[in-house]
Amino acid sequence: MKCEMVTQEDVFHSMESAEKIGRKAYDELITNLRADLLMAQRALNETSQSVVITIGGVDGAGKGEVIQILNEWLDPRGLDTHSFWDMAANATDRPYQWRYWQSLPSRGRIAIWFGGMYTDPIDKYVHEKRGTEWVSEISKDIRFFENMVLKDGTIQVKIWMHLTKGAQHRRLKDLYENPQEHWRAMSDDWKHHDLYEQFSEAAEQLILFTRSREAPWHIVDASIKEWRNLTVGRLLHDAMIQAIKLEKSARPEKKAQITIPKVEKNFLAEVDLEQHLNTEVYEQALITWQGRLHRLFWEAYDRNISTVLVFEGWDAGGKGSAIKRVTAAIDARLYRIVCVAAPTPEESNYHYLWRFWNPLPRAGRITIFDRSWYGRVLVERIEKFAKEHEWKRAYEEINEFERQLTDHGTVVCKFWLHINQEKQMERFKKRLKIPYKRHKITDEDWRNREKWTQYESAVNNMIGLTNKQSAPWTIVAGNNKKFARIQILQSICQQLEGALGGQGEDH
Amino acid sequence: MKCEMVTQEDVFHSMESAEKIGRKAYDELITNLRADLLMAQRALNETSQSVVITIGGVDGAGKGEVIQILNEWLDPRGLDTHSFWDMAANATDRPYQWRYWQSLPSRGRIAIWFGGMYTDPIDKYVHEKRGTEWVSEISKDIRFFENMVLKDGTIQVKIWMHLTKGAQHRRLKDLYENPQEHWRAMSDDWKHHDLYEQFSEAAEQLILFTRSREAPWHIVDASIKEWRNLTVGRLLHDAMIQAIKLEKSARPEKKAQITIPKVEKNFLAEVDLEQHLNTEVYEQALITWQGRLHRLFWEAYDRNISTVLVFEGWDAGGKGSAIKRVTAAIDARLYRIVCVAAPTPEESNYHYLWRFWNPLPRAGRITIFDRSWYGRVLVERIEKFAKEHEWKRAYEEINEFERQLTDHGTVVCKFWLHINQEKQMERFKKRLKIPYKRHKITDEDWRNREKWTQYESAVNNMIGLTNKQSAPWTIVAGNNKKFARIQILQSICQQLEGALGGQGEDH
Repeated sequence: MKCEMVTQEDVFHSMESAEKIGRKAYDELITNLRADLLMAQRALNETSQSVVITIGGVDGAGKGEVIQILNEWLDPRGLDTHSFWDMAANATDRPYQWRYWQSLPSRGRIAIWFGGMYTDPIDKYVHEKRGTEWVSEISKDIRFFENMVLKDGTIQVKIWMHLTKGAQHRRLKDLYENPQEHWRAMSDDWKHHDLYEQFSEAAEQLILFTRSREAPWHIVDASIKEWRNLTVGRLLHDAMIQAIKLEKSARPEKKAQITIPKVEKNFLAEVDLEQHLNTEVYEQALITWQGRLHRLFWEAYDRNISTVLVFEGWDAGGKGSAIKRVTAAIDARLYRIVCVAAPTPEESNYHYLWRFWNPLPRAGRITIFDRSWYGRVLVERIEKFAKEHEWKRAYEEINEFERQLTDHGTVVCKFWLHINQEKQMERFKKRLKIPYKRHKITDEDWRNREKWTQYESAVNNMIGLTNKQSAPWTIVAGNNKKFARIQILQSICQQLEGALGGQGEDH
Repeated sequence: MKCEMVTQEDVFHSMESAEKIGRKAYDELITNLRADLLMAQRALNETSQSVVITIGGVDGAGKGEVIQILNEWLDPRGLDTHSFWDMAANATDRPYQWRYWQSLPSRGRIAIWFGGMYTDPIDKYVHEKRGTEWVSEISKDIRFFENMVLKDGTIQVKIWMHLTKGAQHRRLKDLYENPQEHWRAMSDDWKHHDLYEQFSEAAEQLILFTRSREAPWHIVDASIKEWRNLTVGRLLHDAMIQAIKLEKSARPEKKAQITIPKVEKNFLAEVDLEQHLNTEVYEQALITWQGRLHRLFWEAYDRNISTVLVFEGWDAGGKGSAIKRVTAAIDARLYRIVCVAAPTPEESNYHYLWRFWNPLPRAGRITIFDRSWYGRVLVERIEKFAKEHEWKRAYEEINEFERQLTDHGTVVCKFWLHINQEKQMERFKKRLKIPYKRHKITDEDWRNREKWTQYESAVNNMIGLTNKQSAPWTIVAGNNKKFARIQILQSICQQLEGALGGQGEDH
């Protein structure tokens, strides 16, 4: 993502000055704008695009007022307003982007974000004295997020409503001295006025680091209300028109060739599938490792360390029964299993990662994904449910998603349950004989089996491109189920011990 | 709802004793049961019914184990497990039943509730020494809830797994002394063992108060694991079969004639629609009341008092513009507007009240419903989207829902924006002339207009049957918009002042 690099002073000085508009002219302009906005909103609603409008700005610039006005101008049925302030525990409990994912508009809709992803960094910069390096880091996250959802059809309109220090003072004084509007000037506003320079500096830095061609910032002079309202309304209108055009066009920019690194290694071929455990050793090991895991998960709970377990694997690879050996060792109150199938119509109305954000574990809990976001680069790739540029860019998106998790302190363990084709056939046949397992074999399983080579290559790509030290893949030797289960239990224990031993004090 | 009244001792003594089952017989029984469960689950999935199985019981009875086993036996794709323990702030932030509504299964699915609605009351009885009267009150709530969702097709299976004190001791000792399972006996279990009598008493009382023909309790002897597992599995199977039969039958019990009290009063006719304010008075009053409301909402925020505002009214009654005058006085970070339209396919998969529980305000916040649950007894009644017995029983369900809110300390204000037919026609015509308002007039509005008399009678019924002192209706004289807006602002202020002045200290 390219950032237009300009000097710091440029940010607010390059702002177009507000113009005075007569009452009558204003009314006429607004009448037309409102009709245009509604028409655009209805057209947007028919598309698979969506719009996020972030309203930021200095105190006294009228963020709240502008949000009220947008709510008045637009059809409220296609609109949601979200503020990211004074968040309940459930937001800080999870990686910080969780709340933004929960607030994304579904296709065809508009979301107004009060301050959006910027309120928190600006506050931290001013009150916790974070430096430029920190701003640069957080900006990288924000840019990645904005760019990612943009590729999925969510247009970003980022508005910063500016007042000079003098204008801010006048605005607050006016409010304060007007007995009728006295209540609009809050004490916090005056406190922030004293910190005007620090807030401006924070905003300037963030704006500089997060403006790009794809998600530009619009600096709006808020000194004249009418001009401000008109400008914001027009910017939102432009964004909707852009979204509608995107829908109609073939989206050529999305077809741009994406090249992914070549994965030479055949990870699956290296697995020794002969490994096995006899019953006696297995039963002893099961008790040992389940006991250990049980203790570790309680310790993680005490220390607010969450865990995400991802299970992928061949059909009949033993995912289900392995998961049971893991859950048998966890208190039923601590974990949750998410079975991932084809997305529901509601889920399809969002970015493909959306449905995985919601069930992320709260502090100290465990979420077990029985199949996962890796479907994007496996079944969706092979069956062509995702277009080539979509699954190709997914590797990076997934790495970024998991980095958010591990940065938050979440332990991420990923398993591929590997078996060979002979073992699969043997298990398919066996299942057909057991009444309560028969339903597990579907036509799809037989079809998938025919695509073994394609899947093999997709799996090797997946492992090669998403195996990170903080979120490693464990390829499980699954021909012998006993061996596989112990391998999985051991692997989780080791990762948990690493997290609890090493970085525990930080949480 | 009828309760079978039995003496207290009956509860656990009437339990069928567990039987020993040989390993081989058990395996065979389980094999058959699993096949039956899966078949029933698949059939259930095709219906509009659902099942909630609550697993309660004494410590050491193996609640967690049984939940693991059910997860193993059933198809996980149609199943969710919920525990209600150590809840995050977002659960205590709202009326306590909020979490259960969030955990209801959608049509065709099964939910396993770990302890369900009973964990919390048992804990409170033992640790906070609540008395029988309290149990009786909370039981009424629970019975109402269970009965209500049952009528919507959610079958309740309530299982209490029992151990005598001696058996509990043996179980904990066995676990403790077995080095391999040592970790399964938790220190809390021993603490609870010492309180065995208190826990039993709490459970007995709750079971007595909440068992009914429609939602019976099953007391399962948990002293022999195999018998326990089989019994629980069979009870769940029976419930699914019952649900499937319900779907097929004409549900005669639902057709039972429901009589609602006759509402004689014509509330709407009593409204003086001539009331109006001139511009000057209005503008002064607007500033005054908005300022007051602003302060009150901040005070309510500081004191964690939430508010729910309900706006209903005739088409063109002025709902939208009245809501704007209210929101103009509230900090945009504090409120949320929910526009209610026809339910989405997802929403239709639940009880009709489900979609209103989710957006309830967190502590200190405001949710504004632009149309609401009253649609059930207005448009759904008139347009026959709801059957007669459905909308008739809705009055009581709605009163109970709002009682949950007000018991939690939430301020509930309900407005009907009343105008007469001439004023409606005048506004329809005016809207057609304004480009950005034209979209507001649809064919539906003209159709609704033809049903004025029917709606009038439905509105009078609604007001007569759901006007409560704690959640009162304000019928707004809406012919003059200025008058209406001030009436609404005043009314909210008065209710808030009542809540803040009177019962403030309790929150």
